[in-house]
Amino acid sequence: MPRRPTLEFWFEFASTYSYLSAMRIEALADAAGVSLRWRPFLLGPVFAAQGWTSSPFNLYPAKGRHMWRDLAREAARLGLPPVVRPDSFPQNSLAATRVAVHGAEEPWIGAYVRAVYAAEFARGESIAEPAAISAILNGLGLDGPALIRAATQEPVKNRLRSIGEEAKSRGLFGAPSFLTEDGELFWGNDRLEQALEWSVGERPAGMRRQN
Amino acid sequence: MPRRPTLEFWFEFASTYSYLSAMRIEALADAAGVSLRWRPFLLGPVFAAQGWTSSPFNLYPAKGRHMWRDLAREAARLGLPPVVRPDSFPQNSLAATRVAVHGAEEPWIGAYVRAVYAAEFARGESIAEPAAISAILNGLGLDGPALIRAATQEPVKNRLRSIGEEAKSRGLFGAPSFLTEDGELFWGNDRLEQALEWSVGERPAGMRRQN
Repeated sequence: MPRRPTLEFWFEFASTYSYLSAMRIEALADAAGVSLRWRPFLLGPVFAAQGWTSSPFNLYPAKGRHMWRDLAREAARLGLPPVVRPDSFPQNSLAATRVAVHGAEEPWIGAYVRAVYAAEFARGESIAEPAAISAILNGLGLDGPALIRAATQEPVKNRLRSIGEEAKSRGLFGAPSFLTEDGELFWGNDRLEQALEWSVGERPAGMRRQN
Repeated sequence: MPRRPTLEFWFEFASTYSYLSAMRIEALADAAGVSLRWRPFLLGPVFAAQGWTSSPFNLYPAKGRHMWRDLAREAARLGLPPVVRPDSFPQNSLAATRVAVHGAEEPWIGAYVRAVYAAEFARGESIAEPAAISAILNGLGLDGPALIRAATQEPVKNRLRSIGEEAKSRGLFGAPSFLTEDGELFWGNDRLEQALEWSVGERPAGMRRQN
């Protein structure tokens, strides 16, 4: 059997368009014969390096109004439940992200990521408190308190910091982002399908001519 | 015959993703049974109101690097010629836009818009000087110098200013943007097909449930 190509999925739990990708990517990658590498990261430091102190959807209200409407349309188009907007946006995603970094290679990572996003954007719940994340983990049959403890240890904090440096050094500027094995960067939920196609060697018609 | 719905296409000549839409929209609208209203406008004042002094693709270099690569991929995917990046970006689009405002209802508007964009992004030429626009008009069998003269009269300048106010008051924050008759706003070349579908009454599965 030929080796399956790997696609890195860089996502931020506070990001609405990461949500749209996170709910679909595992099934789509499986269907495409692509191995998925879950890459949780924090957008805050990336945005701060761009001079932003909040989400661009808050800094630029017209852009934000369109985003929420577009999110509702896209969720409907993709067969996801109606979006329920959380009271606070963007939410503090540190606790959720630490657990995802800790468990990124575990078999439960996909189910965990989807459960966090569903709480946040399909039910409009807060995901900011460790207790909320712990409850989500318990709901998956995992040991929430133990995982929260493990995820707040120094090695995970260090890993999260180095992931942030890696994100910047590899040219990431937003989420979701997809990175192929040959270094091709795709940004945005609208590029998920193309990133998978690229991973298995498909190129847009005319692309070979161009490169 | 039933009345054809109208879709407004708001575009900025300096905008790379407006280019991707402009080259396709007339044919796609015809096929969908949608009347097209060409809405040339200047993004500069819209961006200035958001505190930007240049294109976000220049202000945020990582975003800009991805954009040029994505543009190459998208052009290839859409069957457009390889993108040739103009020496200067974004280009001063005032002369081109004034002519488009002057001729927005003329039968040659589509051919004119495509000719300007092809010069700019398929051949990498400057479109900043009135002489370049005049030559493009001449190439379409029109009277370039006369149209340039007409487009620099006070009424066109006033119309361009009021279009800028309209853009802001209707929630536009970037280009391309698509506005349907019932006021639905779609932003970005990735939403062109959906805007056309919305125009003819198609809704994403589950959208009726949501609204």
